[in-house]
Amino acid sequence: MRHVTFRDVATRYKAIFFDAYGVLKNHQGVIPGIPEMFEFLKAQGIHFFVVTNDASRSPELLTEVYQQAGIRDMTPDRIISSGMLALQFLQAKVRYGAVAYLGPARSAHYVETEGLKTISIRDVDLAHTEHIAALSLLDDEGFDWEKDLNKTINLLRKQNMPVVVANTDTTYPESRDEVAIAIGGLSDMIERVVRKVFIRFGKPDSQIFQFALEQVRKELDVQKSEILMVGDTLNTDILGGNKFGIDTMLVLTGNTQPHRALPQIESTGIIPDYICESVAL
Amino acid sequence: MRHVTFRDVATRYKAIFFDAYGVLKNHQGVIPGIPEMFEFLKAQGIHFFVVTNDASRSPELLTEVYQQAGIRDMTPDRIISSGMLALQFLQAKVRYGAVAYLGPARSAHYVETEGLKTISIRDVDLAHTEHIAALSLLDDEGFDWEKDLNKTINLLRKQNMPVVVANTDTTYPESRDEVAIAIGGLSDMIERVVRKVFIRFGKPDSQIFQFALEQVRKELDVQKSEILMVGDTLNTDILGGNKFGIDTMLVLTGNTQPHRALPQIESTGIIPDYICESVAL
Amino acid sequence: MRHVTFRDVATRYKAIFFDAYGVLKNHQGVIPGIPEMFEFLKAQGIHFFVVTNDASRSPELLTEVYQQAGIRDMTPDRIISSGMLALQFLQAKVRYGAVAYLGPARSAHYVETEGLKTISIRDVDLAHTEHIAALSLLDDEGFDWEKDLNKTINLLRKQNMPVVVANTDTTYPESRDEVAIAIGGLSDMIERVVRKVFIRFGKPDSQIFQFALEQVRKELDVQKSEILMVGDTLNTDILGGNKFGIDTMLVLTGNTQPHRALPQIESTGIIPDYICESVAL
Amino acid sequence: MRHVTFRDVATRYKAIFFDAYGVLKNHQGVIPGIPEMFEFLKAQGIHFFVVTNDASRSPELLTEVYQQAGIRDMTPDRIISSGMLALQFLQAKVRYGAVAYLGPARSAHYVETEGLKTISIRDVDLAHTEHIAALSLLDDEGFDWEKDLNKTINLLRKQNMPVVVANTDTTYPESRDEVAIAIGGLSDMIERVVRKVFIRFGKPDSQIFQFALEQVRKELDVQKSEILMVGDTLNTDILGGNKFGIDTMLVLTGNTQPHRALPQIESTGIIPDYICESVAL
Repeated sequence: MRHVTFRDVATRYKAIFFDAYGVLKNHQGVIPGIPEMFEFLKAQGIHFFVVTNDASRSPELLTEVYQQAGIRDMTPDRIISSGMLALQFLQAKVRYGAVAYLGPARSAHYVETEGLKTISIRDVDLAHTEHIAALSLLDDEGFDWEKDLNKTINLLRKQNMPVVVANTDTTYPESRDEVAIAIGGLSDMIERVVRKVFIRFGKPDSQIFQFALEQVRKELDVQKSEILMVGDTLNTDILGGNKFGIDTMLVLTGNTQPHRALPQIESTGIIPDYICESVAL
Repeated sequence: MRHVTFRDVATRYKAIFFDAYGVLKNHQGVIPGIPEMFEFLKAQGIHFFVVTNDASRSPELLTEVYQQAGIRDMTPDRIISSGMLALQFLQAKVRYGAVAYLGPARSAHYVETEGLKTISIRDVDLAHTEHIAALSLLDDEGFDWEKDLNKTINLLRKQNMPVVVANTDTTYPESRDEVAIAIGGLSDMIERVVRKVFIRFGKPDSQIFQFALEQVRKELDVQKSEILMVGDTLNTDILGGNKFGIDTMLVLTGNTQPHRALPQIESTGIIPDYICESVAL
Repeated sequence: MRHVTFRDVATRYKAIFFDAYGVLKNHQGVIPGIPEMFEFLKAQGIHFFVVTNDASRSPELLTEVYQQAGIRDMTPDRIISSGMLALQFLQAKVRYGAVAYLGPARSAHYVETEGLKTISIRDVDLAHTEHIAALSLLDDEGFDWEKDLNKTINLLRKQNMPVVVANTDTTYPESRDEVAIAIGGLSDMIERVVRKVFIRFGKPDSQIFQFALEQVRKELDVQKSEILMVGDTLNTDILGGNKFGIDTMLVLTGNTQPHRALPQIESTGIIPDYICESVAL
Repeated sequence: MRHVTFRDVATRYKAIFFDAYGVLKNHQGVIPGIPEMFEFLKAQGIHFFVVTNDASRSPELLTEVYQQAGIRDMTPDRIISSGMLALQFLQAKVRYGAVAYLGPARSAHYVETEGLKTISIRDVDLAHTEHIAALSLLDDEGFDWEKDLNKTINLLRKQNMPVVVANTDTTYPESRDEVAIAIGGLSDMIERVVRKVFIRFGKPDSQIFQFALEQVRKELDVQKSEILMVGDTLNTDILGGNKFGIDTMLVLTGNTQPHRALPQIESTGIIPDYICESVAL
């Protein structure tokens, strides 16, 4: 574990996976110096991808904030989200029927396929649930917490179905000082209350890293040892990257405050290969 | 563990503690046959108390449903609620300052004392929290879940304070077929998200049984072996009664369905002394 | 929460409850200055009790270390152990039959009563278990971990019975630098593996504090507000004392290292009324 | 979810992944009718692999039981074990130094590589641990539980290092009626006691399925939808297969007893595509 500058380390890798929130952007948008960083990577021929626990919108919509900041190379195919894993699961294992969901309509929209219709929990009629084939927990917004969380629990008591959690984060930053409960936190509560086992997608689970690896290999012949994961959270980015067998770098611009980094590494036993103040140039 | 009728067993005890919901009342009010049961106990000279995980209102308000059903002897001093334990804790350990709370105004009202003011989370200004000395999680109603649960988390991130959970139940029945998430379930989520240790009152914790024991001993010289706890839930009523060292009876009119009783006793290892269909006469 | 000297604070109370390990004694025996402290309390007329998560031996045997250090006033009736709670439970709720146990013979010896025989897990014949009425997890010593932990699990799979954990600690200090897994840690593993609900005695549960309160009231008319709990562990001594409604003092001679005290109070939300370097005089 | 015979379903797939214990073998060795089943698959041109949470020995040693039962086609390259994932992790992320381990020497042997030496916890000197780069929890046999589990905890308190759990199972069947605690169960206890985050390999984690997929694709061009996972355990085989996006079949010859299958599917929410009495022919 070494303290480094991003520039020095980055050039040793063929591809870099970035967490989004706390690394590339914060509650105010793209962090200053990030567009320059991507220019640098491009000039060096280093491929980059965003690997994010975000199921609130499609990759197309997720690119917008980067495009607006002038990062033209951040295209939808460079964004791998936990929501895409959830979609992939539903296509493979559920195939047809209605998928009930918690989240805004925009998050459900891209889950819709030829065989899969989506229905907001709000619109579910608990007296007629036979057509509901799965439940997808997508985002903390877009529904009435009291009404729809209670409805979700009663749906799961009535009918046995696979439940997909498309974002394992328990909180996310909402402003400089405040956080909000993420769908992962709400899902933990629902799962404990109904005592069922949900299917979780997103870091630290290795499936999202595998998805990203397959994406990068469409462009590039690359070994795991040639990939670096950069993130601000020990429990998701670093643990997941380590487990997947790629190198990991902790940055201190998000969840992990500079003076807490070493104590947290010590107390959790999650050890990044590198620590770096910021990836901004 | 024996299947019995309530009448046969009751007469062996000097005092009986009853859980409320699922035993004496359900979503429609007092269960038919319960007023007659209390008449029977009175005729036999058996003392009775309600021991309930309920902090939604004061003992005075909790008696109303029994009074309306004609059970004149159910007076506030016969109702021991987890909310009273929370109040006792706040009086003993916090003493003065403001107690922020989640729940309806009626639940907070009886927490107010000379030294303790209460303030709904809704009215808390996160920029000025110095006067808040404790947080009390009272009930699942009376607040905006999305807004106020997020506010609660940010309050606890800003300031260290004791947090009291006044009802450990995770759900409660809302109608014949549906349940709702109780404040205990919401509290579990908040506790996990903020990673602090909350102080929980209510069955199965022995403190509420001790409180009830002290209440009954004001009327009667009684040993623990002369008291029976009657409840519909293994994890709270039966586990708590067993641990406290009193005899326990599981009734099948509430949370534990008749055909699930034996499998659940087997799988949890929580063994009541008696099983009884119903306490209604 | 104030930093204080023990002498200044002690004189405000009529009775003091002490945790044993890390407060009065350590791996080398009674801490220097503790006999003088007890002399001081005696001179001031302050009553004292030891409230300890220890089921490894009877109060009689537990007094020996204090007697040898010249603390003549530390008599068995001043020691309240979690083991006594377990014994009380078995007497009240099991009454007769054989109690299988994990621990040394000396820990089981004092559980034996007229109706209760004890049998070491080592001597249990899994083909004939009908006579076993309960299981008591007493101590981490005195048995073959691999053989007897596996045997314990198979006993609980074969037969449903109450399981008592007589010490909730997960580890205990074995030397200046090393700890050992306590029976509480082993019990957590067994409970998870067999998926049953065990009955735990010991701090922070309020039952042991209630037991101590009843003991002190045999000598003295005392209110909860006139009692101080002194301990070295936030999760047991301080959390339990707070919840029970008595004042609490964290000392820094045991589990909580001086430089970790404030961060741990902050991160757990368990707040003592006082912090004190040591109770030794 | 349909009740089927193995023969009818198997022919729809190009490749089948089998759990080992409870499906192909039990405590007495290979289950009768399994060699005939493999003959059938071979005749049909269906590829097969064993995907097993077993780190007790190398694939070479794991094949022996099948070879002895006359299943000549079960070669080491057809066995994917969680131990191989652990080895892969150590090679990728630790690379050189000593790997301390819990387990028999035969389990550690195959972890040894050019850069990685292994050292049994038994032989670790807690006064000199600088050369230890990682800890690997391999198997429940081959060490002194009391002595070496305590030593493990003190090693992790002294030095921060990645900890690999090479088998997530909590128990395994030891005879027709009895089970034993597996290294996964011991690991849970150690992790809770030291409060660190361990890295777990094995079903239901998708990494072992990905490993198997890469192995089968060396022989065959195959889609996930053309692969069937067959297992006896909902929490590992079926949950993991579902999450990975392949079809799943629950067999009733092992952990899941025939009369418990439907209640367990209902209570866990883990739903296999097929249920089948046995894969033996």
